Amino acid sequence: MATSAVMSEVEETLQRIKSHKGVEGIIIMTQEGSILQSTLTEEQSKQHGALISSLTEKASLMISTLDPDDKLSFLRVRSQKKEIMIAPDNDFLMMVIQNPNVVE
Amino acid sequence: MATSAVMSEVEETLQRIKSHKGVEGIIIMTQEGSILQSTLTEEQSKQHGALISSLTEKASLMISTLDPDDKLSFLRVRSQKKEIMIAPDNDFLMMVIQNPNVVE
Repeated sequence: MATSAVMSEVEETLQRIKSHKGVEGIIIMTQEGSILQSTLTEEQSKQHGALISSLTEKASLMISTLDPDDKLSFLRVRSQKKEIMIAPDNDFLMMVIQNPNVVE
Repeated sequence: MATSAVMSEVEETLQRIKSHKGVEGIIIMTQEGSILQSTLTEEQSKQHGALISSLTEKASLMISTLDPDDKLSFLRVRSQKKEIMIAPDNDFLMMVIQNPNVVE
């Protein structure tokens, strides 16, 4: 388990990102899909988490298929109403959902 | 079939984008996956086309699952070596592959 120091640092990071205008939600999850931290409801977290980790997996596979020596580092999904930014790491995956129309 | 005026406009756009430093390839294809224009080899076009249109479809489904009134407008896939930008339209899909490390 992450030490309390790490968890409070994660918490601080979450609060800082959350304070940006337009940010609607932040989820931190393991690569396997379990939610570690989320500012969304449990139901929203599950739905977003499942869909987004599956998309990330597919993007990662696409990159390594095109070039086995390359690796996915960021994914940005822009729609008419929102922008989903996904930062995959070795073990974790962080996603920020924001409304691009109200950004500073 | 697109009129010759439209095709030459498409051709002009392709050449203009291709002239940007770092741009490695451009593909224009139908939503169903057939390649209309490409600056890559036939084999590269087929591989990129299939992988990227499949990822785009999944991203589009994700957005409409999260909000049926929302629609995918842009997808940016960043890896350690390249950046793939995908602009889906109603009937077509354009993708630009660039090396972000040599951009102007």
